[in-house]
Amino acid sequence: MADHLSAVLDHIDADLDKSLERLFEFIRIPSISTDPAYKEDCRRAAEWLTVQLRELGFVAATRATPGHPMVVGHQTQAAKGPHVLFYGHYDVQPVDPVELWNTPPFEPTLVAAPNGDTWIVARGASDDKGALMTFLEACRAWKTVSGELPIRVSILFEGEEESGSPSLKPFLEANSDELSADVALVCDTDMWDDETPAITTMLRGLVGEEVEITCADRDLHSGMFGAAARNPIHLLTEILATLRDADGRITLQGFYDDVSELPKAVKEQWARLPFDEASFLNQVGLSIPAGEKGRGVLEQIWARPTCEINGIVGGYIGEGFKTVIPSKASAKVSFRLVSGQNPTKIREAFRDHVRSYMPADCTVTFRDHGASPALSLPLDGPWLRPALDALTAEWGREATLAGTGGSIPIVGDFKRLLGMDALMVGFARFDNRVHSPNEKYDLSSFHHGIRSWARILAAFAR
Amino acid sequence: MADHLSAVLDHIDADLDKSLERLFEFIRIPSISTDPAYKEDCRRAAEWLTVQLRELGFVAATRATPGHPMVVGHQTQAAKGPHVLFYGHYDVQPVDPVELWNTPPFEPTLVAAPNGDTWIVARGASDDKGALMTFLEACRAWKTVSGELPIRVSILFEGEEESGSPSLKPFLEANSDELSADVALVCDTDMWDDETPAITTMLRGLVGEEVEITCADRDLHSGMFGAAARNPIHLLTEILATLRDADGRITLQGFYDDVSELPKAVKEQWARLPFDEASFLNQVGLSIPAGEKGRGVLEQIWARPTCEINGIVGGYIGEGFKTVIPSKASAKVSFRLVSGQNPTKIREAFRDHVRSYMPADCTVTFRDHGASPALSLPLDGPWLRPALDALTAEWGREATLAGTGGSIPIVGDFKRLLGMDALMVGFARFDNRVHSPNEKYDLSSFHHGIRSWARILAAFAR
Repeated sequence: MADHLSAVLDHIDADLDKSLERLFEFIRIPSISTDPAYKEDCRRAAEWLTVQLRELGFVAATRATPGHPMVVGHQTQAAKGPHVLFYGHYDVQPVDPVELWNTPPFEPTLVAAPNGDTWIVARGASDDKGALMTFLEACRAWKTVSGELPIRVSILFEGEEESGSPSLKPFLEANSDELSADVALVCDTDMWDDETPAITTMLRGLVGEEVEITCADRDLHSGMFGAAARNPIHLLTEILATLRDADGRITLQGFYDDVSELPKAVKEQWARLPFDEASFLNQVGLSIPAGEKGRGVLEQIWARPTCEINGIVGGYIGEGFKTVIPSKASAKVSFRLVSGQNPTKIREAFRDHVRSYMPADCTVTFRDHGASPALSLPLDGPWLRPALDALTAEWGREATLAGTGGSIPIVGDFKRLLGMDALMVGFARFDNRVHSPNEKYDLSSFHHGIRSWARILAAFAR
Repeated sequence: MADHLSAVLDHIDADLDKSLERLFEFIRIPSISTDPAYKEDCRRAAEWLTVQLRELGFVAATRATPGHPMVVGHQTQAAKGPHVLFYGHYDVQPVDPVELWNTPPFEPTLVAAPNGDTWIVARGASDDKGALMTFLEACRAWKTVSGELPIRVSILFEGEEESGSPSLKPFLEANSDELSADVALVCDTDMWDDETPAITTMLRGLVGEEVEITCADRDLHSGMFGAAARNPIHLLTEILATLRDADGRITLQGFYDDVSELPKAVKEQWARLPFDEASFLNQVGLSIPAGEKGRGVLEQIWARPTCEINGIVGGYIGEGFKTVIPSKASAKVSFRLVSGQNPTKIREAFRDHVRSYMPADCTVTFRDHGASPALSLPLDGPWLRPALDALTAEWGREATLAGTGGSIPIVGDFKRLLGMDALMVGFARFDNRVHSPNEKYDLSSFHHGIRSWARILAAFAR
């Protein structure tokens, strides 16, 4: 297959205008999933994709769900090499406020950017129609040049990603055998910067807890009971203050037991990244990193477990002042987890920690606000190194491994329901105005994105 | 004078039915100060008192204010002995919900209580018409028996106590020479228990502060910025947790510098009081005293300075969960002060304490929610010992010195505007349902209250 790669890349360059035309045709279908008025457009977008897949030799179908349909396609070629499942979504966000758009949101427009770049401006240009089409156009180039794809490919497109994916889990569960592959490919993440490609390999997990402390059985007047009666706000603040030590480490029993140090190679790569801690914090008005001492900011936000208090309330919070000692006080606390940490164990460690501070005459209740383990793509597995090399070759710059503190639910679903890891590669830029007026995708993201996938498919075939 | 006392007490006993008749006449005037519909009734109550005072030989007048009138009376006898100003109020609380009253609220009714006591049930029976009349009836008995009062007495009755006393301060300021006396007598406090009289000698002061901490200049997503960006809730809880040490002592610099230990005699008296710490806390569902180690609960709530967090809020406090790192978090904090502590100094110590924990990239703002110094009647002054002895003689049980954590604004006003200490003696019981339906005053409170004042007047004359 590798012998075809340079011809495939040449074809991609030569065919770029036609690729753009296809993308524009796709974008013009206003497939807004949250608005019932666009239900038929969502169906049209699904049908359009099914037709595209069939052109590329897939056995493809628009599959009904209680909501908007799924599109599933499988290659009919004899299985060879690894089997990948590519995931994307054809639905888009609403366009309001439409008066802030400089061009009609569903009429894709090429705009010359101030810095000389060219932007594709339209709703869905980046999220996720442009991104999804980078993969389909890579498949098209392979099919055109060599008559077949270098590896076995299946496809899953959904139409409810922007409205919470209610049909996705049931669909995965009902079709788990059909949709299971060796690895999932997800194209929904960002470049590191305009010129540096990135693979997101670490998704932190999350444990959400609400803790409520009750002291007296009613609100008290501080003049009558002050000091003598336990104040639940005071108790709560004292307990919460113990969650981190002076070095910013989380103090829960066993919290770090299953946490591994970052591999030296990754640490070194991150140290080489053009990341300025001061600028990162300056953008939100801060300048002093607040987390674990001796850890860089990138490591803190991508690869270290954390504890945050996300909400707290107790006593009188209106205008003015009341000298009340409240009966109750509560807080919402979350832990971001890294690979290896067991959410259930962390939740229990938190509850034990809080309980250990409770006086015998006060009570504490906990509320479980969900948990998900961290996910990470093994550095030494079969996917990461070939993909990194392919990206590095395409962009002429070392591709970086990235983490993300946020969650990408589909990746957890693939792992949990289908037992698949996911390779997250994306060509979006930070400033793409995804979900906002004047959403854009750089023409170079689209072009090099197609070429990148063409290279990754070849790399996986080796 | 003392030679008249036993005749005066006998007269009080013999005249009790007539005293009650006068009280009932007064109670029947529905002088609700908060409801404009009762404006004329308030004026009638003031006029009624003015007539009473004139009968007792006072030069008295109903004095206009922007609100309900004041009643001021002065004795015309040549000045001899100390000069006291008795304060009371003729207005009462509304009676809603009227359907919960067992008898008409403005038709005083004698009710046989389950324990054999007799209750005077009516709005104002305790607060403050019954209490106020104990003093007037004592004056009446002295006047009847000996033709004059044992000491020089002035009177101030207001009609806006239940609606925030808006006219009081201006009236005190405008008439400060006229109203200044050697000591004020205030009849608005409780007995220690059904059989033990009490003088309230300590009113704690109060400093109210609101502290708001700002970290990032916007709310952040904890997945993106968690750990690296300072969380103001975490910072606030850490700071608030430092306000008390492990022994429950307040950690502000110099907080205890001006705090004196309780005199040994008072400490011993309080130790003898039938006060059960467990029962006190049990009534609100607690059992473990939470304040300073090594200090009794009574000492904590009456005679020690405290710090309470009265309110706290930050981040997401609605249903469910949001992984936000908020920009701001705030708390309302109050300090109860004891005699000697300077509110301004305490406020500054608190602000300095908070500032000392602030990272350089975060900001804190403070809001002043008022301050008042503690007030206490000197144990070794001319008023306390004679009054205690008089009460002890009347009730056949050692009168106790009490503190109160709450504030009685008039006492601060007398001290600040007129330079007068106040002797707070009251005959109310805890269960008088003041401000509630079926307010009552024990007939024995009324009877022994009159006799107590008769004795105190005699004691001051010595």
